Amino acid sequence: MASYRSITWMGDRLRLLDQRRLPAEVQYVDLATCAEVAGAIRDMAVRGAPAIGAAAAYGLALAARTAPGGSPEAALAAVEEGASLLKAARPTAVNLAWAVERVLSRARERPWPSAAALAAAVEQEATAIAQEDVDTNRAIGRHGLALVPEGARIVHHCNTGSLATVDYGTALGVIRAAHEAGRNVHVYVDETRPRLQGARLTTWELAQLGVPHALIADGAAAHIMRTQGVDLCLVGCDRVAANGDVANKIGTYALALAAAAHGVPFYVAAPTSTIDLTTPTGDAIPIEERDPGEVLYVGETAIAPAGTKVRNPAFDVTPARYVTAIITEFGVVRPPYEEGLARIIDLARAARSQGGVR
Amino acid sequence: MASYRSITWMGDRLRLLDQRRLPAEVQYVDLATCAEVAGAIRDMAVRGAPAIGAAAAYGLALAARTAPGGSPEAALAAVEEGASLLKAARPTAVNLAWAVERVLSRARERPWPSAAALAAAVEQEATAIAQEDVDTNRAIGRHGLALVPEGARIVHHCNTGSLATVDYGTALGVIRAAHEAGRNVHVYVDETRPRLQGARLTTWELAQLGVPHALIADGAAAHIMRTQGVDLCLVGCDRVAANGDVANKIGTYALALAAAAHGVPFYVAAPTSTIDLTTPTGDAIPIEERDPGEVLYVGETAIAPAGTKVRNPAFDVTPARYVTAIITEFGVVRPPYEEGLARIIDLARAARSQGGVR
Repeated sequence: MASYRSITWMGDRLRLLDQRRLPAEVQYVDLATCAEVAGAIRDMAVRGAPAIGAAAAYGLALAARTAPGGSPEAALAAVEEGASLLKAARPTAVNLAWAVERVLSRARERPWPSAAALAAAVEQEATAIAQEDVDTNRAIGRHGLALVPEGARIVHHCNTGSLATVDYGTALGVIRAAHEAGRNVHVYVDETRPRLQGARLTTWELAQLGVPHALIADGAAAHIMRTQGVDLCLVGCDRVAANGDVANKIGTYALALAAAAHGVPFYVAAPTSTIDLTTPTGDAIPIEERDPGEVLYVGETAIAPAGTKVRNPAFDVTPARYVTAIITEFGVVRPPYEEGLARIIDLARAARSQGGVR
Repeated sequence: MASYRSITWMGDRLRLLDQRRLPAEVQYVDLATCAEVAGAIRDMAVRGAPAIGAAAAYGLALAARTAPGGSPEAALAAVEEGASLLKAARPTAVNLAWAVERVLSRARERPWPSAAALAAAVEQEATAIAQEDVDTNRAIGRHGLALVPEGARIVHHCNTGSLATVDYGTALGVIRAAHEAGRNVHVYVDETRPRLQGARLTTWELAQLGVPHALIADGAAAHIMRTQGVDLCLVGCDRVAANGDVANKIGTYALALAAAAHGVPFYVAAPTSTIDLTTPTGDAIPIEERDPGEVLYVGETAIAPAGTKVRNPAFDVTPARYVTAIITEFGVVRPPYEEGLARIIDLARAARSQGGVR
């Protein structure tokens, strides 16, 4: 386990490592209400699809705990209201909605004898989601290990580590698994404009893990592939459509095109909670357009003239034909994705009914 | 002409618009020695291949003026020493070397009766280079106009405007010519990490010209092509090899790959002074690796943990097969480039012997 933790449940509040302040400061914030959790997701104090899902689940636990009135009906109403608020906080990542729906189903499962019983059930479900995320990520690391040769030079985009998850990481979990297995890997870290998750967070995590790495501007990855040689790209994702199209942090698609041009395998690490078979293709995935200020400012420094118009899509869609394989906690899925993803979701359902991924 | 001027010869000193301070401040610096000019080129107070060439030429004029001893031999020695210093300041842009060699030939042309006569000849040659650059850019604009349809949506990388040249611009000169011809163009401005020339300089120039534009993160260009539609990409260059391979600002190659994947024409604006027939292919072009601090800091803000290792190639090479056409002051060159570039260089030599491009 990492020595830092993006998400910690404190029994009556949710503690988040404030990712907006990293790497300058390691500072935690405590949230006592569901509205505060939704705000932290929207403002990206917590980010990364799996971390957002777990945080939202605990947000519902807070909604149930703090519901006024004291009746189980009032608690359920508070959970339902919180669910709407949380789902609206970030539109692209599907496991936010997945985690919220899962907790909501539990809350609606039966008539609870008391508000406290409902709150306990919701909290238990949130804790299960968080614990399963760690197990899921370790399993992704094990399955991904086979794709990482000794001495691999890897390009990684955004942040997909312990910070983006409850612990261990998805794409960074694969890198971590390779490092822990003794393979000498080297990571080129895309800085990932505009929010610089690669520069701020991934370098910080890799340094703590002792994995050799070098930070590069996003525009340099193609040049590095052409001149230094790269063995694979590893990215996370916010949603996988039924046909294998992948929504992930802006810049992922450009990296996939560069990988394709150089014959470099392009791997996506995806917990099955990010696979959405109800989304037929990437065209149906809503792409969040964020505040122009994210592009116009770095810290306090304005990088463009005041009033400059900005386009700031937070995500892009990489068509399935550029994705070499999708690494899930139940195994590696290769094209054709329609069949492979449907099969893996069946596996996930079967495993869940038998007690999870472990 | 623009209301600002990157380079102005003041008779006894060279005035540069300090591009490191834009857009926050419009501040000029006056340089009185060749060593100061070399320093300004190295530190990028002046940047952009054509602007660097003209600045270096004036640097030699300062070397001749300030030579100690007073003999024509001493003045020539000072010019030769200055030439070595200037050529070492930035290795990738070929018209730095081109301008220096041109002035040097003039200085060596004959035995001068006095140091003053040599200094006057050197100054005259530098002024000719600067004036020809403006004429060259206007001609590039005229030739490029045919490639820009009404309503064109254009992606532009780095800065190639008045600031990168003596005036008018190369790739931005084509955009400016289209705008002046009444075509409703819209420019997506790559911010161009790490030095943010697009965010800081291109937006500033386009705003002054009244050309509609939106700033984007470099990683967003491919997504914009896929979702918004883009009609062409326009970039400048630092060197064109004999086979049509193009060295330009880091990120150009990634943009060219995205353009190729979407069938978007990829045009390079290149004064013939950037075409180097003695460089057979892009593999022979030295790629400058710059200070890690350019990636690690934006203004005063550290964006990564202290001590993070960085790879910071300032340029990349786009293979000729991804370049749709090269726009020069003597016309548009299309593949096969070996023949077309050799022909355009012959044209340039013939025109120069008859008095230039006008």
